[in-house]
Amino acid sequence: QSIYEKLGKTTRTVDVELDNQIEQLRESKRRYEHVLSLARSYANHFSNLLATQRALSDTFLELKHKSFHLCDEYGYNAEAQGLLVRHGEILMSALNYFISTLDTLCNKTIEDTITTIRLYETARLEYDACRTEMELLPPGSQLNEKQREFEKYKERYEKLKCDIGVKMQFLEENQTKVMKKQLLLFHNAIAAYFSGNQQALDATMKQFNLKVLS
Amino acid sequence: QSIYEKLGKTTRTVDVELDNQIEQLRESKRRYEHVLSLARSYANHFSNLLATQRALSDTFLELKHKSFHLCDEYGYNAEAQGLLVRHGEILMSALNYFISTLDTLCNKTIEDTITTIRLYETARLEYDACRTEMELLPPGSQLNEKQREFEKYKERYEKLKCDIGVKMQFLEENQTKVMKKQLLLFHNAIAAYFSGNQQALDATMKQFNLKVLS
Repeated sequence: QSIYEKLGKTTRTVDVELDNQIEQLRESKRRYEHVLSLARSYANHFSNLLATQRALSDTFLELKHKSFHLCDEYGYNAEAQGLLVRHGEILMSALNYFISTLDTLCNKTIEDTITTIRLYETARLEYDACRTEMELLPPGSQLNEKQREFEKYKERYEKLKCDIGVKMQFLEENQTKVMKKQLLLFHNAIAAYFSGNQQALDATMKQFNLKVLS
Repeated sequence: QSIYEKLGKTTRTVDVELDNQIEQLRESKRRYEHVLSLARSYANHFSNLLATQRALSDTFLELKHKSFHLCDEYGYNAEAQGLLVRHGEILMSALNYFISTLDTLCNKTIEDTITTIRLYETARLEYDACRTEMELLPPGSQLNEKQREFEKYKERYEKLKCDIGVKMQFLEENQTKVMKKQLLLFHNAIAAYFSGNQQALDATMKQFNLKVLS
């Protein structure tokens, strides 16, 4: 049936609105996956920077005690890097939360609906194939059994269509809500960190019920 | 002579103060090299983070135009990352200047003096070897020629000793001045960047006569 459809040799049951919704959902997933992959790079590079800041803070502190002429210079640099490490660990928690939530959204929540969509697409193919077969039967053929088969496919197709309709509507609201919250967290945590605003950073963590793991 | 000295079978000419100065210089070089290597990692990770911020800013901007429900959220995130990129490029210039100055200090300025120190150490060995030989000559030997050789080694040794004395004194003042300035730049640029203080960052760049290459 799939091949006949591609060759344009048969008709397919189309629900334009539903197909658009499905295409939109797949597009959303691609977008979130792209953001997720960039966020992972972000966290990765930031974590490397954090480790270097930690090493630099330790080194400057050591040199502060060993060096007579540059004691002050090493001292304030050790302090500055140490402060960045403490704030950086908080930002790291926020980044990890952002990543883990987006991962769940892409690979569990949306993926679950996409699995149902695949079942729906198969059911639609089977339904249309059965319909085409029926249409091609010579007039006066024994229709009863084919008719029962057709009804079974039709029922399954309509049930799945209804299922994904409900699932997608629920998901549409849910994913927007999740992303709104996560993009706000991402922005606020980064803005607070890169403006050296510890209070705002702490407030953001509290707002999102996040604890710093160290 | 070197082996005899290690076995304690001969005496060596020692200038305790000068030897301490040499050891201190070598220690300083090791310290600066360690800071330099950490600064290189720092710049490397920061540059990777900067590239990810640039990609994320572009992606958020694109999604802002494509997404109806999350338009605002993508918008302010694109702006925040874009701002970090612009400030980050300035910090990157400061880091690169810090690295290039420390590299010159370690691998040209200090290395030049250390090369002279190596010549001095060889001259000291040759001088002591010649002195030991003279002491071991049986009484009444023909001393004139050995004496001339000895004077030559002595002269060379004393000239190089004088040279490194001057070089090390000059270097001591110079390296402290350079490091004081560089550690101040490093601190001020990082403190300004990580407190989101564009004015302070610009002022630091101006103070150190730095231009942003982009």
